[in-house]
Amino acid sequence: MKTKHPVGILGATGMVGQRYIQLLENHPWFEITWLAASDRSSGKSYGEAAKWRLDTPMPERIAKMMVSPAEPESAPKIVFASVDAAIAREMEPKFAAAGCAVISNSSAFRMAPNVPLVIPEVNADHLHLIEEQPWRKESGGYIVTNPNCSTIGLVMALKPIEERFGIETIFVTTMQAVSGAGYPGVASMDILDNVVPFIGSEEEKMEAETLKLLGHLEGNSVAPLHAMVTAHCNRVPVVDGHTECVSIKLGKKLGWEVTREDILAAWAEFNPLAGLGLPFAPAQPVGWTAQNDRPQPRLDRNCGNGMAVTVGRLRPCNVLDWKFVLLSHNTVRGAAGATILNAEMLVSLGKLEPVAAALARN
Amino acid sequence: MKTKHPVGILGATGMVGQRYIQLLENHPWFEITWLAASDRSSGKSYGEAAKWRLDTPMPERIAKMMVSPAEPESAPKIVFASVDAAIAREMEPKFAAAGCAVISNSSAFRMAPNVPLVIPEVNADHLHLIEEQPWRKESGGYIVTNPNCSTIGLVMALKPIEERFGIETIFVTTMQAVSGAGYPGVASMDILDNVVPFIGSEEEKMEAETLKLLGHLEGNSVAPLHAMVTAHCNRVPVVDGHTECVSIKLGKKLGWEVTREDILAAWAEFNPLAGLGLPFAPAQPVGWTAQNDRPQPRLDRNCGNGMAVTVGRLRPCNVLDWKFVLLSHNTVRGAAGATILNAEMLVSLGKLEPVAAALARN
Amino acid sequence: MKTKHPVGILGATGMVGQRYIQLLENHPWFEITWLAASDRSSGKSYGEAAKWRLDTPMPERIAKMMVSPAEPESAPKIVFASVDAAIAREMEPKFAAAGCAVISNSSAFRMAPNVPLVIPEVNADHLHLIEEQPWRKESGGYIVTNPNCSTIGLVMALKPIEERFGIETIFVTTMQAVSGAGYPGVASMDILDNVVPFIGSEEEKMEAETLKLLGHLEGNSVAPLHAMVTAHCNRVPVVDGHTECVSIKLGKKLGWEVTREDILAAWAEFNPLAGLGLPFAPAQPVGWTAQNDRPQPRLDRNCGNGMAVTVGRLRPCNVLDWKFVLLSHNTVRGAAGATILNAEMLVSLGKLEPVAAALARN
Amino acid sequence: MKTKHPVGILGATGMVGQRYIQLLENHPWFEITWLAASDRSSGKSYGEAAKWRLDTPMPERIAKMMVSPAEPESAPKIVFASVDAAIAREMEPKFAAAGCAVISNSSAFRMAPNVPLVIPEVNADHLHLIEEQPWRKESGGYIVTNPNCSTIGLVMALKPIEERFGIETIFVTTMQAVSGAGYPGVASMDILDNVVPFIGSEEEKMEAETLKLLGHLEGNSVAPLHAMVTAHCNRVPVVDGHTECVSIKLGKKLGWEVTREDILAAWAEFNPLAGLGLPFAPAQPVGWTAQNDRPQPRLDRNCGNGMAVTVGRLRPCNVLDWKFVLLSHNTVRGAAGATILNAEMLVSLGKLEPVAAALARN
Repeated sequence: MKTKHPVGILGATGMVGQRYIQLLENHPWFEITWLAASDRSSGKSYGEAAKWRLDTPMPERIAKMMVSPAEPESAPKIVFASVDAAIAREMEPKFAAAGCAVISNSSAFRMAPNVPLVIPEVNADHLHLIEEQPWRKESGGYIVTNPNCSTIGLVMALKPIEERFGIETIFVTTMQAVSGAGYPGVASMDILDNVVPFIGSEEEKMEAETLKLLGHLEGNSVAPLHAMVTAHCNRVPVVDGHTECVSIKLGKKLGWEVTREDILAAWAEFNPLAGLGLPFAPAQPVGWTAQNDRPQPRLDRNCGNGMAVTVGRLRPCNVLDWKFVLLSHNTVRGAAGATILNAEMLVSLGKLEPVAAALARN
Repeated sequence: MKTKHPVGILGATGMVGQRYIQLLENHPWFEITWLAASDRSSGKSYGEAAKWRLDTPMPERIAKMMVSPAEPESAPKIVFASVDAAIAREMEPKFAAAGCAVISNSSAFRMAPNVPLVIPEVNADHLHLIEEQPWRKESGGYIVTNPNCSTIGLVMALKPIEERFGIETIFVTTMQAVSGAGYPGVASMDILDNVVPFIGSEEEKMEAETLKLLGHLEGNSVAPLHAMVTAHCNRVPVVDGHTECVSIKLGKKLGWEVTREDILAAWAEFNPLAGLGLPFAPAQPVGWTAQNDRPQPRLDRNCGNGMAVTVGRLRPCNVLDWKFVLLSHNTVRGAAGATILNAEMLVSLGKLEPVAAALARN
Repeated sequence: MKTKHPVGILGATGMVGQRYIQLLENHPWFEITWLAASDRSSGKSYGEAAKWRLDTPMPERIAKMMVSPAEPESAPKIVFASVDAAIAREMEPKFAAAGCAVISNSSAFRMAPNVPLVIPEVNADHLHLIEEQPWRKESGGYIVTNPNCSTIGLVMALKPIEERFGIETIFVTTMQAVSGAGYPGVASMDILDNVVPFIGSEEEKMEAETLKLLGHLEGNSVAPLHAMVTAHCNRVPVVDGHTECVSIKLGKKLGWEVTREDILAAWAEFNPLAGLGLPFAPAQPVGWTAQNDRPQPRLDRNCGNGMAVTVGRLRPCNVLDWKFVLLSHNTVRGAAGATILNAEMLVSLGKLEPVAAALARN
Repeated sequence: MKTKHPVGILGATGMVGQRYIQLLENHPWFEITWLAASDRSSGKSYGEAAKWRLDTPMPERIAKMMVSPAEPESAPKIVFASVDAAIAREMEPKFAAAGCAVISNSSAFRMAPNVPLVIPEVNADHLHLIEEQPWRKESGGYIVTNPNCSTIGLVMALKPIEERFGIETIFVTTMQAVSGAGYPGVASMDILDNVVPFIGSEEEKMEAETLKLLGHLEGNSVAPLHAMVTAHCNRVPVVDGHTECVSIKLGKKLGWEVTREDILAAWAEFNPLAGLGLPFAPAQPVGWTAQNDRPQPRLDRNCGNGMAVTVGRLRPCNVLDWKFVLLSHNTVRGAAGATILNAEMLVSLGKLEPVAAALARN
């Protein structure tokens, strides 16, 4: 792959937009050629338009690029999107209709029946749903989404267990970092010396997305996992990294008793992307920590370059079967890195070839 | 009650010891006359011995008092204790044997069959257990305990529900303030920009204490509530105030469906100490907040002078019946204030009369 | 004083507006009868319009009051104002022209030659400047201002020294709480695990206001203190309480060497409001702490109900003469409490009598 | 350089010891072969002995190494040391006497006349002082020190100015991260929602070390810079990265006025190690940021892999000539990285050849 795929960023000045830029610098397959943001920013250089909040410098090439209007005319055929749901609802179909592969972190279409909601390690086969999208047939364009930042860590930790033992009930309480709310996002007066036990729509998203992600492709739609999920979502004074306390009840009719070792083995052996050579796929997607006070966001969020989920404290639950703690980096694995890995998976499946080729083949 | 009861503080220099001192300044019934701490402190003035961490000034009278050795000889007949469990295990019986009413925040004897573990609003009748203690008969002394800081808020919020509707299953995830770990306690390197998903023995304490507190006095012991409890305990970067996310399943055979209004009414009408005139009893023990992002520790911890529990976000749970959030001040309601209210309850019951009188009466 | 003065709050929903409401509940002299805020809020009840951020409950009476438009027609004759400078510049003169005593925390007119910038303990005589204002003669109305939150603590600590020994040079570095920036104010992404070494216009305000406050009334204007001031202003992750590191050079021609005890005595004996009976005047305006690691915002900000300044760590400076640390509560002493104390001072001087009386007397 | 220099770590389990281990993984010149800590740790594996607090995993090879007693017998000839001053005072001479090059972050010998206190970019020529040490002649061993974490950033920012324009007066206020106090170090109760305006001995160290570092080697000792320095040191709720507010007065007799551009040029052109190929030398030792609210610890501490100092907000000072803000990573540039760069400098000067060779040459 000598020449890189040109990609555009929709929502380039936001927190996730900044992460796309940071993570794609030196990406072996993708090169940013187009940056779009709201009208307020368009026409300015990115360096002027964005208030950079990351702890590595803004790449100089990017700083000099002009911010384009958020219109598909000038956009490349691959677009990474992270914009507010209301805006995405209107804008992403326009890009798809214009023939773009819209690989999106936005929540607008995650639950749409013909839109794949994908974590490559978990349900890459759901990507087949793009063929059900009307734009695909007309222009070659389509929409693919990744889940909410708090859902991804949960589902990655559950998938290895679900596929071996089944899961009937899921109980999760999150302690989420402020970066998940964007910038300016959470006011400092709300979070210093404080916890906010509410994040708008977050519990509903986690509950619904988890079941779709763990569901099965049946014909041209996804049958969600048949299980119960309840979520309590909280904001805590942490910059990056969502921590989640989970209890689960395993499938009923296993015929044998699942041991702690069985679950540890399921996590350790979970690596469905091994051998595909996807640059952002972590070597160990779900990593176990044996220390009894881990995982912790400050210490574990950068595991696997921020793409791995760390699990710990596996122990019996008095109410369900097992309980444990998980941690994932919410703006890397939980947002920008998730989109990028979805794009890599699409490359691997041949779904990001030039539009003409895609159309011809169809 | 013209003259106040003289009381001593065992563990006077610790975080909870400091709260006793702060809260008892100007208490209408009790007056501190004796302060004891470890050998390192004894013989110094309290002002020298204690590193005061509270945001009101150390009372001048207290600053000048000498710290006594932790021996019952010089102690008054009422002792408020908050020391490490290992020390309490050895020391509290010595004070009880010497005729002291040891009203303790320590964990050592909370689960002992003949030691009452009490929240006055919840199970004041359990105080009868002191009559089962050997010291009571010999010297008039006894031990009464209050629960762990994370248990108190939970049980106060559950009691009004349990007594009306029954509870079968309790699921709780805590986000606990650092003051609960004492001083120096949690290292700043462990909690800035971080969450620690583990607190030694905390989950076990919450699970066991909750059932004893909600249990029933049967003859000379307590039959714990027959229910399942599971706890996930976390430390978060908050100074004071424990936040807890709770899901519950109500009793099975109610014969009618419990509504949201039923639960709100149970909380609103819960006030078993009304009319007793206990100085530290909050006017509204369990206060409801209608704002969807409350309770929050920084904003709600001082409710009812730190003695009330605030509940919010009551909503259906996909797995159990209901879920909600609660908050209580961990070093006031959850520790020092709990001990003081236990002492007030004992006064009200006539159990803190001078020992001679008590012995005579027995 | 049987009936209280009716007062209005301009900017009632902001952080300082909320403090006015909190601090004026039960004030013996003033009673809030009018609340005004931006058009967005007016017409709603205060309970609906304001996102209450303080740790005591919103008073019920206030919650039910309607928010009025920010027009003088309906306002009472005493108005406490805290609005953005641009808005204040336009609005405060309208209220003064309509006969209101505008007692303001806004920065718009602090440096205007005929507007008193006052801390009652420091320069109450500057209040005479109101007689130079055109509105005063026409309608009885006038504008009085208090300084910026970071200036007040500094000037209160310097005044006792300046009046005894003179001051030639002032060097100050601030570490300011986030509440000073209002709500939502500082983004949590900017302040968690961080320091922001810049606050717009803050250094310029501190440098100019300090000299006016320490200046002398000469005829109908104030001659600023002849001294050099330099300020470095920083935002730190603290909720309330500004900490300031100060170095000073004393007046040149004292003829004797000023000792540490001299300065401590100057602070201890500073109490120019003693005996006036102003409800918000702290018993000890500048309180000394002998502990070598104090003052600290969390521990000392509520000193004197938040109206006292705490000083500590007085020691020789290698470059100037002395250095020390000071702390004051930025939204109480540094904002809402400052306005209220100015109003109390005006009552004491007879400047808040009904307008008719004032006009008649003039 | 085919084979790497074997090095030992004295104080391997502490915060700086952990940073040595993290930073030396994959170092091209040095390889850790020996880890020593207190008696409590010695005899255990490092994985057991150390409570790892860094956000990258403990290297597996290191985790398995045994912790040795802190005795020179088993140590390699190069030892990186970071232990408490009292311990260093006794221990470091023993290692030097045994022929070790002790390259130390400890404070014990920094101000000793025959011990070089060195920042390679600033005063590498002071390393000559090792030849004045008695051990050097007897065994080849010696002690070299780097400054205190808060001094390094200051002196690196001042050196380019001092060497071009002279400096007469230095005024500095620090806002220091908690990692500088080690582990457990600062209690969370002391720093959440708080500032501590005192760090034991820190101001004295900064004032003395700055003048020695900027001083000149005269014969066999260092004549400190003739200037006045005053420091205010504060602890703030930041994990890593010291922020410092600085005002300076330039040398008197320059004969021309120094402009803002002159100072920016001095910083930009400062690169005395360019071309030496030292692996830890940053490409731009003192980097300028043009944004008016930078540098900030969370965003800038990792600049130049944590080895560069970032300066910003250069502006005139009302009292001295110029003021600015600087930031450096306190446990990388300010501690472990400083020691490593000193060691690299010693390699470059031929002072870390095997002892025999060194002795022979002498």
